[in-house]
Amino acid sequence: MPLMRLDLIEGRGDEELKRLLDAVHRAMVDTFKVPERDRYQIVHEHPASRMIIEDTGLDIARTKDVIVLQVTTRPRPQAQKQEFYERLCKELYEQCGIKASDVMVSMVQNTDEDWSFGNGRAQFLTGEL
Amino acid sequence: MPLMRLDLIEGRGDEELKRLLDAVHRAMVDTFKVPERDRYQIVHEHPASRMIIEDTGLDIARTKDVIVLQVTTRPRPQAQKQEFYERLCKELYEQCGIKASDVMVSMVQNTDEDWSFGNGRAQFLTGEL
Amino acid sequence: MPLMRLDLIEGRGDEELKRLLDAVHRAMVDTFKVPERDRYQIVHEHPASRMIIEDTGLDIARTKDVIVLQVTTRPRPQAQKQEFYERLCKELYEQCGIKASDVMVSMVQNTDEDWSFGNGRAQFLTGEL
Repeated sequence: MPLMRLDLIEGRGDEELKRLLDAVHRAMVDTFKVPERDRYQIVHEHPASRMIIEDTGLDIARTKDVIVLQVTTRPRPQAQKQEFYERLCKELYEQCGIKASDVMVSMVQNTDEDWSFGNGRAQFLTGEL
Repeated sequence: MPLMRLDLIEGRGDEELKRLLDAVHRAMVDTFKVPERDRYQIVHEHPASRMIIEDTGLDIARTKDVIVLQVTTRPRPQAQKQEFYERLCKELYEQCGIKASDVMVSMVQNTDEDWSFGNGRAQFLTGEL
Repeated sequence: MPLMRLDLIEGRGDEELKRLLDAVHRAMVDTFKVPERDRYQIVHEHPASRMIIEDTGLDIARTKDVIVLQVTTRPRPQAQKQEFYERLCKELYEQCGIKASDVMVSMVQNTDEDWSFGNGRAQFLTGEL
């Protein structure tokens, strides 16, 4: 169920992008323990001038590979979130060569009643999920 | 006040899109009971490869009409949200021929102080709204 | 740390956009009291038909300069948010000639564990921030 909104700098081909999305999905499924088809990914590609991603003084160098991942999800344990951050970076590096220094994540939380996956129903409330 | 962010696959003309936005607005005004001019809609159109919307195993078939609607709103009763999901699908089908199986919604909640509709003021706090 | 998502109508050049982003950043740093490099801005530019921004009956006239700013942030005092709305409009007018009537803001709140600024770590939890 998490909804994943990815903001990237433009320039990747379809195949490269698919690998990136697969890597994000792998990390998510394995740490959040959701079904394989719990996949909801939206990608925004921007000219470099339309994404300013600095580092709050953490001394993190960004490149044109920089990714901002905004996750909307039901509540999850803190440990699971931390595990996700780590695993996400591991997958992105291994599958796509993207450095951990280029991966930023921000999560927002909602609840069962805030999701309808189709058919006009709130599947977490109806018992379908 | 809800802010509506719509993600679609590219390919609709202006008129078709207007009809879609009107349908979303109609469903929202009628179920959330907000003023007619409480309309804040932003549309993102994507190449098909930039939106992966599966179904968490619910066996919901998606087509190129798939819509993801992300709603940011002050708190609303659960029943109102469920009514909105249903009504939204009804309007989109009747006005645009979009099937209920192509309509996904995710809501996020904030509060009075989180809105400024213009003029640098928080109108839910100032008493203007 | 706030993540700033800006939705604008297309048509600005790089320099004009940079000035706009600088103005938003100035307002944010000065009212939220965050480090200068706490800058995370993403811009979406849309055809005019893809942004319908009305006024909830507040009688606020919008132009093609209209800006919707969606802010994701850790909790902040109400007064600070109100100060931000005001200051934002002041900066945008003084630096870019954008009228306060064209500036809409919506905030969403999350918590320490919801941020990873890079390197797979949740820097608000690790003590790095």
